[in-house]
Amino acid sequence: MNYRMTLKIVGRVIGIEAVLMLIPMCVALYFSESIKGFLVAIAAAVAFAVVSGIITRNCDKKIYSKEGFTSVALSWVAISLIGTVPFVIEGEIPNYIDALFETVSGFTTTGSTILQNIEVLSKGLLFWRSFTHWIGGMGILVFMMAVVPMSEEYSMYIMRAEVPGPEAGKLTSKIQRSSLILYLIYVFLTFSEIIVLVLCRMPLYDAVVHTFGTAGTGGFGIKNDSIGAYANPAIEIAIGVFMLLFGINFNLYFLILLGKFKAVLKSDELRYYLALITFSMFTIAFNIRHFYDSFSTALRSAFFQVSSIATTTGFSSTDFDKWPSYSKMILFALMLIGACSGSTAGGIKVSRMIILIKTIIVEIKHVLHPHSFNSVRLGGKTVSKEILRGTLVYFVIVIFFIGFGSILLSIEGHDLITTVSSVATCISNVGPGFAGVGPVQNFSFYSAAAKLLLLIYMLLGRLEMFPMIILFNPNTWSKKWQ
Amino acid sequence: MNYRMTLKIVGRVIGIEAVLMLIPMCVALYFSESIKGFLVAIAAAVAFAVVSGIITRNCDKKIYSKEGFTSVALSWVAISLIGTVPFVIEGEIPNYIDALFETVSGFTTTGSTILQNIEVLSKGLLFWRSFTHWIGGMGILVFMMAVVPMSEEYSMYIMRAEVPGPEAGKLTSKIQRSSLILYLIYVFLTFSEIIVLVLCRMPLYDAVVHTFGTAGTGGFGIKNDSIGAYANPAIEIAIGVFMLLFGINFNLYFLILLGKFKAVLKSDELRYYLALITFSMFTIAFNIRHFYDSFSTALRSAFFQVSSIATTTGFSSTDFDKWPSYSKMILFALMLIGACSGSTAGGIKVSRMIILIKTIIVEIKHVLHPHSFNSVRLGGKTVSKEILRGTLVYFVIVIFFIGFGSILLSIEGHDLITTVSSVATCISNVGPGFAGVGPVQNFSFYSAAAKLLLLIYMLLGRLEMFPMIILFNPNTWSKKWQ
Repeated sequence: MNYRMTLKIVGRVIGIEAVLMLIPMCVALYFSESIKGFLVAIAAAVAFAVVSGIITRNCDKKIYSKEGFTSVALSWVAISLIGTVPFVIEGEIPNYIDALFETVSGFTTTGSTILQNIEVLSKGLLFWRSFTHWIGGMGILVFMMAVVPMSEEYSMYIMRAEVPGPEAGKLTSKIQRSSLILYLIYVFLTFSEIIVLVLCRMPLYDAVVHTFGTAGTGGFGIKNDSIGAYANPAIEIAIGVFMLLFGINFNLYFLILLGKFKAVLKSDELRYYLALITFSMFTIAFNIRHFYDSFSTALRSAFFQVSSIATTTGFSSTDFDKWPSYSKMILFALMLIGACSGSTAGGIKVSRMIILIKTIIVEIKHVLHPHSFNSVRLGGKTVSKEILRGTLVYFVIVIFFIGFGSILLSIEGHDLITTVSSVATCISNVGPGFAGVGPVQNFSFYSAAAKLLLLIYMLLGRLEMFPMIILFNPNTWSKKWQ
Repeated sequence: MNYRMTLKIVGRVIGIEAVLMLIPMCVALYFSESIKGFLVAIAAAVAFAVVSGIITRNCDKKIYSKEGFTSVALSWVAISLIGTVPFVIEGEIPNYIDALFETVSGFTTTGSTILQNIEVLSKGLLFWRSFTHWIGGMGILVFMMAVVPMSEEYSMYIMRAEVPGPEAGKLTSKIQRSSLILYLIYVFLTFSEIIVLVLCRMPLYDAVVHTFGTAGTGGFGIKNDSIGAYANPAIEIAIGVFMLLFGINFNLYFLILLGKFKAVLKSDELRYYLALITFSMFTIAFNIRHFYDSFSTALRSAFFQVSSIATTTGFSSTDFDKWPSYSKMILFALMLIGACSGSTAGGIKVSRMIILIKTIIVEIKHVLHPHSFNSVRLGGKTVSKEILRGTLVYFVIVIFFIGFGSILLSIEGHDLITTVSSVATCISNVGPGFAGVGPVQNFSFYSAAAKLLLLIYMLLGRLEMFPMIILFNPNTWSKKWQ
């Protein structure tokens, strides 16, 4: 284990966080709010970055999988610990565990909150809270690789550990260039949404903050009634559409930039993703039609909620916990599935689901004809045995962790729907769940231990299990596994 | 597809059912009840067996996987359709779908009931209802192979399709001999339980009927309060112990008969099974201690319920739906896991869970060291890649079917706990679920469509998915897949 290089990476990430924190600090200054919290956090971050930089000046730069996973996991823990400071210092979330829950929920783009009244927070902190979604959405290490040159060979280990999906696809042959292109697309889409929301007559500050929540598929709002508070169909539709756009694999936008439209249309994942959204939207609209004046209103509500949950954003325009069982079951399934790999969304990912379904079909054929073995194809390419096995095991790990987490959380004694949906919504980075953690509820009632469990689950989900499992595995730190 | 040989096998199975139905008919005669229902059913079965026997007299006996799976699936559907007749003819369950639900629930050893008042049924029919558990527990095709000689090569395809577990282990080199030994052990354990229950002062009729429910890990009782109605701790403990015994792989009993005690102790599955039961029992007892006068009473209740649910029997000695969340979460997990492969129990099976957990550990090592690949070992032997992949896919299929079934069932509009636990309890062949289908409730409120869905799920679970999937796959019946 190359401890010094791991520390070097974490130090760099913290340094970048210090720079990024200047933005919410300027917002706080603009609104004449206290900036003490940001100053302390930035000072701490700079100190850490400088000291770790000096310690690791001439360290051995060789890293492998293990260092890749642990440095990504540790970086995410570190940015959360520092990101918590402004909330605590300003006294707006005085309890440190609560502030940590909120910050991890931000960076992991979960959007679950412990705040009972969001609207009392200062504008600077609300901006920072939503900005963590934007940073976490595309990944802070991907950002680091876009701005700090690093050896190609070693950056791949980090890319693999932070970018979601069964396969980390590089856009170009160079990782630095790929990271830069990803961020440029991300920034372009972000600005587009801000402009559209302002055109829909949303105030500029609100538009920026909600765009962060959409872009990272996070879901933190600034109103207690989330998007419902605006009662503006145009805003509802605009955010609904942008959530869907941020749930698409960013590689496809790159293909569009290159003019390769045919390749985009060939994407199995995109087709299944849109089919899933469309099917869910229409059947839910039909299921909830009696709750609304007209079918078109029901359809709009269904569209917004399906888009929000499938992309694991978690905004709500209505209390969907009051919807009938069928609608809730579909939303629960969408919560677990999530959107496309290579997007900012959480969940298992549509591409993995396609691989799993195709694997089942191949297995049934194999049971009938034990000597035949068909391969699984995705987007015109044969999926390697390595990725097939990895996808199967990944699914089993997620289900086991949901089961294990639900059993641990059930010790708190809340009803089963609240318990299981809390765990599922956190591991899928969605935000709201059902019953006690429904869209008009929050997570404040849980004990500190339960909050810690849930924030670990958010990190597990955002980093797709392995980095956190490896971080918590004592063997990682022993000589035996080196 | 060899249609004629498939028909021949189904005909033989129906013939055996006709003979077995003579037993409940004699019970009805003894209690001076009407035997019209049994006579009609037996006549229909005999007619079917004779006609199919004549049609397929000189048919080609070659069968392969496809015929193995379809003839097992069709046999189970056929015995259920015939087994329903006495209930309908006697008018005790006048609705045919209800009667089919009850009969499939019996043969698949599920034990879910649509009866609101069990105690009004006649003794002959209650005997038949529980006897279906006994027949379905070890498998009627295994019974057929024990009594009707069949080509070794072809019987293996049937054995593989009906015997639960990742690997169909033959006890001896001959399948007929293996089937016979399995049934002898089954009969011996059955008589032992009857004797023990009579010694616990249970009336003989009740003892026999409850033994059928225990042996098949089915769970049909003859009292509305299940085992709780006897209010007799000795009976509760005796049935609890026998449920555990019937949840053990029958191959181990054969090893005991051969005096190979060391091999029994080496069984990973047995050790994990007992560890799981012990852990669940003590933690649940601790969780429910305030509901009972003493910790020992809580422990007895926890032991009985854990044994009942883990072995997928489904008897209840108390309304466990009123227990706290932790206890219910553990019972729900046990419901899905089930007991040992090669036993009469349902669920995913402990051996598969061990393989899955070991596969996850190997995968984590593999992620860290991409060039290494450790093998998964079970009971001192390396698990083949074939079985590893099969186990992973099996788990994914079960979870997908639970999800898909829950979505379909949610159209009925019942709460999510009722919906999901109905599907889970049926596919795992347990019996009761939670909330609306808790231990003191029943399945009568569901629509006919929902009952059909749930009984298909019972068959899916009992036959471990593939036979039913293959039966319902239109490709099975087309030339393309031959």
